[in-house]
Amino acid sequence: MNADMSISHVGEFGLIEQLRRLCPAGASVVGIGDDAAVLDIPGDSYMLATVDMLVDGVHFRLSHIPPEDLGQRLLAVSVSDIAAMGGAPTFALVSLALPLDIGLPLVTSLYDGLCGAAEPLGVGVVGGNVTRTPGPLSLDLALLGTVRKTDVVLRRGARPGDILAVTGRLGLAAAVRLLTETGMSAEAERDRLGPLARLKAGQVLAASHLARAMMDISDGLAGDAHRLCAASEVGLHILERHVPVDPLARGASETLGREPAELALHGGEDYELLIALDPSQVGRARTLVEPLPLTVVGTVMPREYGVMIERVNGRVDPLPDDGWKHF
Amino acid sequence: MNADMSISHVGEFGLIEQLRRLCPAGASVVGIGDDAAVLDIPGDSYMLATVDMLVDGVHFRLSHIPPEDLGQRLLAVSVSDIAAMGGAPTFALVSLALPLDIGLPLVTSLYDGLCGAAEPLGVGVVGGNVTRTPGPLSLDLALLGTVRKTDVVLRRGARPGDILAVTGRLGLAAAVRLLTETGMSAEAERDRLGPLARLKAGQVLAASHLARAMMDISDGLAGDAHRLCAASEVGLHILERHVPVDPLARGASETLGREPAELALHGGEDYELLIALDPSQVGRARTLVEPLPLTVVGTVMPREYGVMIERVNGRVDPLPDDGWKHF
Repeated sequence: MNADMSISHVGEFGLIEQLRRLCPAGASVVGIGDDAAVLDIPGDSYMLATVDMLVDGVHFRLSHIPPEDLGQRLLAVSVSDIAAMGGAPTFALVSLALPLDIGLPLVTSLYDGLCGAAEPLGVGVVGGNVTRTPGPLSLDLALLGTVRKTDVVLRRGARPGDILAVTGRLGLAAAVRLLTETGMSAEAERDRLGPLARLKAGQVLAASHLARAMMDISDGLAGDAHRLCAASEVGLHILERHVPVDPLARGASETLGREPAELALHGGEDYELLIALDPSQVGRARTLVEPLPLTVVGTVMPREYGVMIERVNGRVDPLPDDGWKHF
Repeated sequence: MNADMSISHVGEFGLIEQLRRLCPAGASVVGIGDDAAVLDIPGDSYMLATVDMLVDGVHFRLSHIPPEDLGQRLLAVSVSDIAAMGGAPTFALVSLALPLDIGLPLVTSLYDGLCGAAEPLGVGVVGGNVTRTPGPLSLDLALLGTVRKTDVVLRRGARPGDILAVTGRLGLAAAVRLLTETGMSAEAERDRLGPLARLKAGQVLAASHLARAMMDISDGLAGDAHRLCAASEVGLHILERHVPVDPLARGASETLGREPAELALHGGEDYELLIALDPSQVGRARTLVEPLPLTVVGTVMPREYGVMIERVNGRVDPLPDDGWKHF
């Protein structure tokens, strides 16, 4: 191994794959590589566990987001991982790295947002760690959850012939982020239906055993579709014209000089669910997740087919694996 | 509240207390305020959960510690919290915030250390999150554990008339830190007996029901004794001459121009256990934790007595509450 090898060379997923090989799995049912770890505990349910870190200047800009919203978002990112397993979140622990110039009111506002979002979900905020940092404000949330052992949904269950569907509309978070970065005014980065809607959707799709594979769309539909296909060892044919673009993202796309589908496919941070389903069950699934829309975006194919996208003009291209990059 | 109020004004523990009041406890048995959260799950055991963050330049200096040792230390900090509840660690999830100039070999070495320490403890490293940061390398580890419901030991069980004992010797971590900061060579910051010894000590003291209250000594004996007394609503009389100073710390104290007891009382990062015991059971407890030394350092008093230290010269002073400060 080259001693100068940088992480950007292998990328986020390359790094995770290298680290995964080093990690003992202990008594876990599913370790690194799904939305959350699946841990065996006595009784009818598994415990789920996930961690997510948000760093000022990377995942948010403190100058652009009210601290209450940041607290909500910190929780929502991890709730989305629990939703993707069909689970219910139970307990959160939070680590805060605080720059010296951060005032107490900002931290309590952040907790107001976090705890205000946690309480209606039945999530206890039961631990944490505070430290100072010479760097930017960094927040790490560990979220535990439970899911019935008979119901847990992994990334790895998709089969050729399934359809692939997404909840909600995509591209809004990316549009808001780009508008903010270019100094244009943007609607507050609020989640209109809220994480509770996806949580319920994940739970009903799991409990009904309709979802064969599921994950959350955090890095963009394109990149996450690649992750799901890799885990399930399948290929995919996505139809660009079926990708549900958020109306606000569509409206902003001209201002931003981007194609609406680009925002929806590669934008990231939508926290919707990506689900593989038996094609005969789509109507039933749609009814179960209402009022959240459920849109069929493609068909699961044999692995040899690859992960392809049929463009609006009819051309079939390999789907670029370039979700929102951390490195 | 003053909008300019800084966190250094309320201090780390003042901040935690303010945040604790905002946090919903959910279905936890013990939330914020002990070494680990205690969560009810089906069966005979509770689940324990703790998080700890280490930041370059605050808790370690990347230029002074081999990455393998840093990985070990990251785990050991949280293992110590599980040990203090009498539990056994089971699963870890890790968040890494990586500066762009960090190379892949450093990260894999860090994981070699972490995973090498996790495996013999039976800990699965089952999840994580990697992100870049414009700030210093920051590592956050969430550790889960289990403890029999009949055996869990909290901070709050000490009663007047108990004795207070510590495992091991104190002051080494502080001596090494101070030597390093002043540019003097220091032995590698290795833990000689390792976290396994304290883990076993915590487990046998819990399972034997000898420990009435227990916590780990992470911020220094003085500050942590205050925490234990506050949780148990008791006072304390500590004898300075009984505080077990690590021989290397004693040797370094002259070089550093510090009193050995100062390093042991206020140094921090020793990760030994502080235990309240029935005085008649000290001999039994000492046998159980061998080869780890167990030293009686004081007597638990009624709350009105306060938290006092009897100096070597016989004077009785209030014990300063000034563990290692994060703010």
